[in-house]
Amino acid sequence: MANFVSRWQFTIEWGHCDPAGIVFNSRFFEFFDWGTWTLFAAALGTQPPDIAAAFGILGLPLVDTGARFLAPARFGDAVELTSEVSEFRRSSFDVAHRLFVRGELAVEGHETRVWAVRDAADPAVIRSSPVPAEVVARLRGP
Amino acid sequence: MANFVSRWQFTIEWGHCDPAGIVFNSRFFEFFDWGTWTLFAAALGTQPPDIAAAFGILGLPLVDTGARFLAPARFGDAVELTSEVSEFRRSSFDVAHRLFVRGELAVEGHETRVWAVRDAADPAVIRSSPVPAEVVARLRGP
Amino acid sequence: MANFVSRWQFTIEWGHCDPAGIVFNSRFFEFFDWGTWTLFAAALGTQPPDIAAAFGILGLPLVDTGARFLAPARFGDAVELTSEVSEFRRSSFDVAHRLFVRGELAVEGHETRVWAVRDAADPAVIRSSPVPAEVVARLRGP
Amino acid sequence: MANFVSRWQFTIEWGHCDPAGIVFNSRFFEFFDWGTWTLFAAALGTQPPDIAAAFGILGLPLVDTGARFLAPARFGDAVELTSEVSEFRRSSFDVAHRLFVRGELAVEGHETRVWAVRDAADPAVIRSSPVPAEVVARLRGP
Repeated sequence: MANFVSRWQFTIEWGHCDPAGIVFNSRFFEFFDWGTWTLFAAALGTQPPDIAAAFGILGLPLVDTGARFLAPARFGDAVELTSEVSEFRRSSFDVAHRLFVRGELAVEGHETRVWAVRDAADPAVIRSSPVPAEVVARLRGP
Repeated sequence: MANFVSRWQFTIEWGHCDPAGIVFNSRFFEFFDWGTWTLFAAALGTQPPDIAAAFGILGLPLVDTGARFLAPARFGDAVELTSEVSEFRRSSFDVAHRLFVRGELAVEGHETRVWAVRDAADPAVIRSSPVPAEVVARLRGP
Repeated sequence: MANFVSRWQFTIEWGHCDPAGIVFNSRFFEFFDWGTWTLFAAALGTQPPDIAAAFGILGLPLVDTGARFLAPARFGDAVELTSEVSEFRRSSFDVAHRLFVRGELAVEGHETRVWAVRDAADPAVIRSSPVPAEVVARLRGP
Repeated sequence: MANFVSRWQFTIEWGHCDPAGIVFNSRFFEFFDWGTWTLFAAALGTQPPDIAAAFGILGLPLVDTGARFLAPARFGDAVELTSEVSEFRRSSFDVAHRLFVRGELAVEGHETRVWAVRDAADPAVIRSSPVPAEVVARLRGP
C-alpha cells in the first residue's frame, strides 16, 4: 500500500527569485499550498474550487507548516513537486511536499491542515470535524 | 485648491527584489493598491476594512492600471509613495501614484477604479454608482 | 504574415486571489513577465536563463506596463495567456498579453521593454542597443 | 540578560489576504524575512543592504523555517512582529518570530540561518563560518 502522490512539474520563474538569484523562501509555501489543492483534486476527482461544497467543509485551514532547504532552485530550473498525505489523525492531517531540481531533492516541506466545518448550532464557529473514511481511503491510495 | 495627497514612507525589502537586484515590477502594483486604500482611509477618516460598510459600497474594483519605470528601486532604499485622486468622473476615478527613491521620481503609476455597489433589484449584479459628493470633496482637499 | 504568439495554459491558484475571491491585480504582472520570458524562449529556441548570454544582452528591462481588466478571473479558473511582440522599434519593443478565462478575453496587458547591453567603454553603464534583425524576424513569425 | 528584540508594527493589507479573508500563509514568511533583516540592522547598527559588506559575509542563507498559526490575521489588522535570535550555534542561529494581532499571539515562526562566506581558496564555494563574538554579543543584548 502506498500513499496517493501527486506530481507537479513547472519551471522556476524570474519573479520567484531574489537578488541572490534563487527562489525566495516564501514562494515555496505558495508551491506547497497549490500542491495540496492539486493533490486533493486529483485524489478526490473534484476540481479545487468544488472541494469545499462537495465535502460539506469550509476548507482545509493550515495550522502548521515548515520547510528545510537542502539545495537552491534557480531561475529557469525545471522542478517537480510531489505531495502526499503522510499522516491522518481524526480531524487533521499532514501533507509532505518534496521539491526536486533536476531529480535531486532540494526542499522538504510539510503542512498540517484541519478538516474544518461550520458548527451546526452556531455557524459563526469554525471547528474541526472527522475526516471522512472515503477521503482517507482515496488519499491513502490503492 | 489642491488634491488630498497621502504619503507612505517605507523601505524596499529583500523579498521585493528580483535577480537583477531591483524591485520586481508586480510589487509596485501591490504598493499602488495599498496606496489607494490608505489614501481613502486618510481622506475619509475611516479604516480600510470599514470603508465599504461606511459608504454602502462593495468596493473599489480596478478596471485599468499602469506604470512607467524611470529609475530602479533597490533593496534597502528608503522610498516614498504619494497617492492622490487625479480625476473624478461620475462613477469612476483615477488615482495617480508616484514613487520616489531618495527624493527622485522613480515610478509613476495610475489606477482607474469604480465606485461599485450591488444592484438593489438584483444583488448578484455589481454595478457602478455615482461617487458621493462628500467623497469627492474630501479627496479634492481643502 | 503573423506575429509569433506563445500560449500558456494554467489554473488560477488560491494564493493568486484576494478577499473578493478574484485574482489580485499584481499577479497579472507576474503572469505577463513570465509570458514574455516564455515567448522569447519559444521564438528564439533558447531557455529563459540562457537568453542574456546567447544574445550578449544584460536583459530586457521593463520601462512601461499596464493592464485593462474586463472580467474577473477566479480560483480554479482555467486560463490561457497569449503573448506576442506587437511592435518593434529600434531598441525597444512592445509585448501584448491577453488573458482568456474559458475562452473570453478577461485581461489585456502590455509591456514596453528595452534591448539592454552594458556599455563597451564603461561596463557600469547600461544602455539600449538595436534589436538584432534575427530576433525581430523570429518574433515576427513566418 | 535578555535577547535584543526588534519590534515592527504594520497593517495587514488587502493584497496579503486570500479568499478566506485572512493572510495567505506565504506572506508570513515574507514578514519573517524582513523581520530578520531589521533585527540584524537594529542590533548591528548597519543598514540591511550594508550588512554583508560590513561583516565580510555573503549573506544569511535560510536552511529551515516554519510557522504555527494560532489565530487568523485579517485585512486592516494592526499587527506587531517581534524578532530575536533565540539560539546561537557555532556558525548558524535560530530566529524566533512572533506576530501579535491586537496584542494576542497569532503566529509563531522560526528560521534557522547560516553565517555564510565565500571560501578563501575557492570563491565559487559558499560555506558556513563562525558567527563573530561581536555579532553574538549584540544580538544577545545588554
